[in-house]
Parts: sequence; structure tokens; C-alpha cells
Amino acid sequence: MKILLVGATGTLGKAVHAVLAERHEVVTASRGGAADLKADITDPGSIDALYREAGSVDAVVCTAGGVPFRPLAELTHDDLRTAAHDKLLGQIELVRRGIPAVTDGGSFTLVTGILSDEPIRTGALASMANGAVDAFVRAAATELPRGLRINSVSPTVLTESAAKYEAFFPGFEPVGAHAAALAYRRSVEGVQTGRVYRVGW
Amino acid sequence: MKILLVGATGTLGKAVHAVLAERHEVVTASRGGAADLKADITDPGSIDALYREAGSVDAVVCTAGGVPFRPLAELTHDDLRTAAHDKLLGQIELVRRGIPAVTDGGSFTLVTGILSDEPIRTGALASMANGAVDAFVRAAATELPRGLRINSVSPTVLTESAAKYEAFFPGFEPVGAHAAALAYRRSVEGVQTGRVYRVGW
Repeated sequence: MKILLVGATGTLGKAVHAVLAERHEVVTASRGGAADLKADITDPGSIDALYREAGSVDAVVCTAGGVPFRPLAELTHDDLRTAAHDKLLGQIELVRRGIPAVTDGGSFTLVTGILSDEPIRTGALASMANGAVDAFVRAAATELPRGLRINSVSPTVLTESAAKYEAFFPGFEPVGAHAAALAYRRSVEGVQTGRVYRVGW
Repeated sequence: MKILLVGATGTLGKAVHAVLAERHEVVTASRGGAADLKADITDPGSIDALYREAGSVDAVVCTAGGVPFRPLAELTHDDLRTAAHDKLLGQIELVRRGIPAVTDGGSFTLVTGILSDEPIRTGALASMANGAVDAFVRAAATELPRGLRINSVSPTVLTESAAKYEAFFPGFEPVGAHAAALAYRRSVEGVQTGRVYRVGW
């Protein structure tokens, strides 16, 4: 398969690349890092340009999408807008605008995370974005044409990031990025649609 | 208690008003309908003005928040923005900006719905918004100060709207708006926080 990987230079993106590149042609995209193509999912024009440059693909996998982490009382309206337009609408636009570029029976795989159900300090907007994308995935699966599938991968805190975020995940058992990457493979090569693949929780 | 009801003129809003007004002083707000106060939750300035006019309250209950219903393939970027800024960020801003206005131990109750988990045709953005708000409620409950609580009420299709939306909810058993209104009472007068009260499913 030819797979477009968006967010290729992050911790999760690198692990997904390692797993998928063993069996597939992977075209990488990133907002700022070293990748085949440049893409900013907060900008619909950038998404359209990405699909023009990538050409037809069999799967789109996304490990990109940021949200501000801040105590509820300190959040600003800009923080809310940022969260809504990056991890949330950014990933949804990546799907919506990508439909014509994906071959029959192809798939989209988005990234969410454990905070949809298990909140942490300062994580209210991450919870919001993850809950939104998981629900969108369940709904979009019922409407996609030509046998296209869509799933999300929802990991707990990654081992590779655990030291940095340790204080925010007290008692959470981390999971290696490789395990989350396997869930991407399961989504891309498997048969399911509308599924949220929980990894490590 | 003194309760601020936002979205008072809708089907659900009227039922919530009937239940809460039996025991409490209810101040009503609406975007366009007949109510004590005018409020547009998509406009942060309007939310701030609402709280200035309402004064101190013991609970905020929201039955407002629209989303576009349209087939996935026909959604526009404006539809996505509308959904994000109305039912989703609108309700979150109603909470965030309302914290100083709510008395110690008071509560917020937001509206979501069954589409978070059970998608229907044309409902992808409603699914997204509902999933987002439910997840936000779980997270915000852990960060609210002064014993403030927050819950959401998530009804299936209402009996009062069932005829209009019948084609979109094949085989869904409708529930009366009164039952959903009771869940609002449970949230306002009860002890729980971070809960999604499912009604009729």
C-alpha cells in the first residue's frame, strides 16, 4: 500500500513509520520537521495542497494534532479555539478533504488518547478533543463512500514521554509507542471501521 | 435556588423550566425567543453580559447549542466551524466564564445526546460535539473550584421531536422531554459531578 503519514516526526509518528514502512510505501508529512511533504492540518488550504502533492493513497494515518494544556481556570478563548482547530477540526478536515484521494477500500486512522475518559490535571481541552474525534470516527464510519474505513488509536501515556509528563500521570502505566504503532497497522491492514483502538488501558 | 436556564425557549428548555420552576427561581435566557435575558453562547461577549445581568446564581443549566446536520460528503469548513463554536465551545465558554458567578457548591449542567455513541445519517458533527462536551464534563469536574459540580444530560430523540426527525432515528424509542428535564433536576439538586446522565438509552 501507499500510505500518507501526517505527523511523521513526533514520538508516535516515528514509531508508526517504523512499523508501516516494513511492509508499505510511506509518504511522510509534518508541520515543521523533516518529512517528504509539509502540512499544517489547522489550515484547510495546506491539507488540500498535501493531497495534491501526495497523489492517490491507500491509507491516511495521522499522529498529529496539538492542544494547549493549562488549568481550567487559566484557559483563554484562544486556547479553546486552538484546541478546536488543531487536534479536533484539523483531523476531521484531513478526513473530509482526503476522501477523493483515498482508493476504494482504503482507510483513515486518527489519533486520540486516554484523556477522553480518564482526565488529568490541565487536560480538559485534550479530553474535549479526544472525545470529539472518537465520536466523529464512530459517526463518519457509517457515511464514508466506496468501502472506505475510519478508526482512531487512543493510547495511554507513552513510555517515551512518561518521564516528561510523569507528574501529570500519577500511577498510569505507560505503554511503548511501538504498541500504539501496532494499533495503526491493525487499523490500516484490518477490516474494522468506526473503532476506537485503546492502547494500554 | 436561583437557576440560570440558557436555551429556555426550545423543546427541552421548556420542559426543564417546568420541572425546575416548581421548586426554584429560574432566570431564563435565549438567543432569539421570549426570555428574561438575551444570550448567544457562540459570542463570549454575550456570555459575559449574560452573567453580569443575571447576577449571582446557584446553578447554570444549558439546553442550547446547535450543529449543522448534513451528509459527511456535503459538509463545508463553515459547517465544522459552526458546530465547534456553538454546541461545543459555546457550552464550554458558558462554564468557564460562569465560574465566578456561581455560588459555592453550585453546578453546571450541559446538554449532549445519544449521537455521541449511536450515530445517525447526517449527524457526524452532532456526534463530534456531543462526544467533546461529555469528555469535557468528565475533565472539568476534577478542576472546578469551591465544590462546584458539572454534569451533562444526554437524551435520545425526544418524543416531542420524533415526528419531525423520524426518518433519521429508525427504530429509536423516543423519550419525553419531561424525563430529560428530570435528569437536569437530578444534576442540579443531587451530589454527583463529572457524570453523563443518559436519558432513554
